[in-house]
Amino acid sequence: MSQGADGIAESFAAVVGAGNLLTGTDAGPDYSHDEALVGDPVVPRFVARPETAEQVAALLAVASSAGVPVTARGSGTGLSGAARPLPDGLVVSFEKMDSIVEIDVANQVAVVQPGVTLARLDAATAEHGLAYQVFPGEQSASLGGNVGTNAGGMRAVKYGVTRHNVLGLQAALPTGRLIRLGGKITKLSSGYDLTQLIIGSEGTLALATEVTVRLYPRLAHAATLLVPFPDLRAVTDAVPAVLRTGVDPDLLEYIDAFTLAAISAAQNLDLGVPEDVRQAAQAYLVVGLESRERDRLDADVQLLGELAESLGALDLYVLEGPSARTLIEAREKAFWMGKAAGADDVIDTVVPRAQMSGFLDRARELAGRAGAGVVGCGHAGDGNVHLAVFCPDEAVRHQLLHEIFSAAVELGGAIAGEHGLGRIKAGHYRDLEDPAVLELMSAVKRAFDPAGILNPGALLSLPDHH
Amino acid sequence: MSQGADGIAESFAAVVGAGNLLTGTDAGPDYSHDEALVGDPVVPRFVARPETAEQVAALLAVASSAGVPVTARGSGTGLSGAARPLPDGLVVSFEKMDSIVEIDVANQVAVVQPGVTLARLDAATAEHGLAYQVFPGEQSASLGGNVGTNAGGMRAVKYGVTRHNVLGLQAALPTGRLIRLGGKITKLSSGYDLTQLIIGSEGTLALATEVTVRLYPRLAHAATLLVPFPDLRAVTDAVPAVLRTGVDPDLLEYIDAFTLAAISAAQNLDLGVPEDVRQAAQAYLVVGLESRERDRLDADVQLLGELAESLGALDLYVLEGPSARTLIEAREKAFWMGKAAGADDVIDTVVPRAQMSGFLDRARELAGRAGAGVVGCGHAGDGNVHLAVFCPDEAVRHQLLHEIFSAAVELGGAIAGEHGLGRIKAGHYRDLEDPAVLELMSAVKRAFDPAGILNPGALLSLPDHH
Repeated sequence: MSQGADGIAESFAAVVGAGNLLTGTDAGPDYSHDEALVGDPVVPRFVARPETAEQVAALLAVASSAGVPVTARGSGTGLSGAARPLPDGLVVSFEKMDSIVEIDVANQVAVVQPGVTLARLDAATAEHGLAYQVFPGEQSASLGGNVGTNAGGMRAVKYGVTRHNVLGLQAALPTGRLIRLGGKITKLSSGYDLTQLIIGSEGTLALATEVTVRLYPRLAHAATLLVPFPDLRAVTDAVPAVLRTGVDPDLLEYIDAFTLAAISAAQNLDLGVPEDVRQAAQAYLVVGLESRERDRLDADVQLLGELAESLGALDLYVLEGPSARTLIEAREKAFWMGKAAGADDVIDTVVPRAQMSGFLDRARELAGRAGAGVVGCGHAGDGNVHLAVFCPDEAVRHQLLHEIFSAAVELGGAIAGEHGLGRIKAGHYRDLEDPAVLELMSAVKRAFDPAGILNPGALLSLPDHH
Repeated sequence: MSQGADGIAESFAAVVGAGNLLTGTDAGPDYSHDEALVGDPVVPRFVARPETAEQVAALLAVASSAGVPVTARGSGTGLSGAARPLPDGLVVSFEKMDSIVEIDVANQVAVVQPGVTLARLDAATAEHGLAYQVFPGEQSASLGGNVGTNAGGMRAVKYGVTRHNVLGLQAALPTGRLIRLGGKITKLSSGYDLTQLIIGSEGTLALATEVTVRLYPRLAHAATLLVPFPDLRAVTDAVPAVLRTGVDPDLLEYIDAFTLAAISAAQNLDLGVPEDVRQAAQAYLVVGLESRERDRLDADVQLLGELAESLGALDLYVLEGPSARTLIEAREKAFWMGKAAGADDVIDTVVPRAQMSGFLDRARELAGRAGAGVVGCGHAGDGNVHLAVFCPDEAVRHQLLHEIFSAAVELGGAIAGEHGLGRIKAGHYRDLEDPAVLELMSAVKRAFDPAGILNPGALLSLPDHH
């Protein structure tokens, strides 16, 4: 570093104002972690709370010249340690950049600052009969954080993930420049798509200072089907059949019996499933349907009911109103259930959806051999499996995760479908990815961030990034 | 170059076999151009027709070490000169890599080699009741070419463009390495999304050797609405209203009166529009609807008919069967109409869709001042305006295009929505894009292609790339 800590603090304070620069433990414990289950909190040296895009860019210019590593932070709800700071680093917290800049009804887009939460955007778009359709399960998450991890969630089976719904960015480069990419347009073939490159880059290439997202009409009618099956393979085999109908569900989840029982107990939720069915059901398919028209919704429910029966479902429950909402919300909170149950890690491996039951068999077999347990639920329509891993020994768990991730990669999948790699899984990624791809990613990283200040050690766990 | 032309030819021939290496004018005129209206054909020094991904990679390794510029070629249907070779260069033609590797029904994906045409993929997926939903208008185009330009087309308003439908790539790097990116999965948050970076890069970063695309169920029922309006503003104002209904049209086009008359005359097409309506209509909205169920389709047609009337439509014609198909096919061939009518260039500028009528007013005003004419049609749902430009003087036309593109960029749009920049519009892009963005793109280019052999001068028209 070319300046002492005091000199650097002064430079940061000159950008954001002394009141918006916190140092050391004054910043409080919130900035020292995200929601990842593993890894210890790290108190950063500086926390800056910029109020404008220009301030973000100026902070990065100072950090680049002083060689201070920078970790961006939205709401801190990430699950992979990507928002965990470095001890000598700066946290750029977007809590004060939380304006909804514009809801453009004619173009069906919203323009927001990165600190805006999904809950606020949802409320604001609802007023116009529109919706931002990415629901990663934690509505207090920020749009900036969602861009960082390419957040997915339940509705991805119909609406895609963050990268399919972000049309443009304003971003601050590590060099201190602000750039604009994309915009209120869905078609674009003019230069490299740097918007897409920054999405999912976990704060290692550039920091989003404004996000333009696509909105869809909010459909009036919705129903949720809960379908018990004798085993998980029957559930995952049902998924392609449901999608082949063209009914286009907005939600297609599986929940194993253990997880559904835990959810029901924790939420005091009566789903109307009789005891004998509960005894026979090892896994449940949850199907969400939505429609502009009530009669179409009813017809779609009927169609899928008949299909489910032909596929060996034990029964079918149509949930509406509060019980449907509670089930979905409880499913979204399954991570917290896992945490409360003492899970040692939570993973979000992805495989081609038709390979999901094979993958789950393999994961259970590997866990069994390691004396560990895996239970969970997942986005069946996307092959995105969320497993709570019960395996307290760190070395055994590391090896088990390596084997589970390897199994997913062999099946054509990947380590993380939506949580990102962060600091927690970057090492696994380095071990499993083709070195030629890692080399290319490192070169891209250097193209954006020659000084290597942006979130070193996250996503790319390479020797030259700590 | 480190070898003479003969030595290089031998090295290329050693990769693909002597029968698959053509040199100079032996290669025939097809390889010297794409379908761009401007610019002269260029006879390349070499044309190689690889049969495997490994051969593509080996060709690039030879080209890198010999410093031979490489231009990839699919079907040669591009409109921006991106497949026009350099005189000292190698054309890698994918005509022999045209296998449909797999149609995976359970995962609803197809895996294809880059030389497969859209027409063949459409026929093959139809057998399974599935469809690849990107229809850029020229069914003889190749999937590899579509990846290069991030092709769009009419159905993008519902299904997105190429980048939303390509899930994975195998690609050859300029260094001669083959890599695999993404796969049969829609959710992925593990490393930078290099798939998205390569899509739309116009053969300047890596060459796709295999493409994994998403398929959707082919819906059984379809109808096309032709809606005459008194003027273009009324048409473009109707677009947000149609989309707000949630009816989700798969096609939302505008055609100006001049272009519809030309299409009807050329195709001998009777659309049933009486003379008095034709006289009063300056512009037409074309809406495509599809559904699993006949009665839902009818209800949607009814709903949009009532909406159109309330928005000032002069009438409404529901086209089905042959006349609908002919209109859509004729609309897809509008480029050829423009060419036959003597257009000097065809552009595909994009703006936010609510800004389309303002943009068109401005484009016409600029053309009028330059003594030029612009007529056309476009993807109204996407703000993607296709204009045939009648302006034979090259310098005047260059200035006019600069002004039209500037107007689009000022409205939040871009030069090209789906044709790419190629060699024809790269200069305009350089003039209009933020230098910081261009610098970043050049750095990304160097990260992939340190020797600068891949399609130099396309997309990035920088001094260091010719």
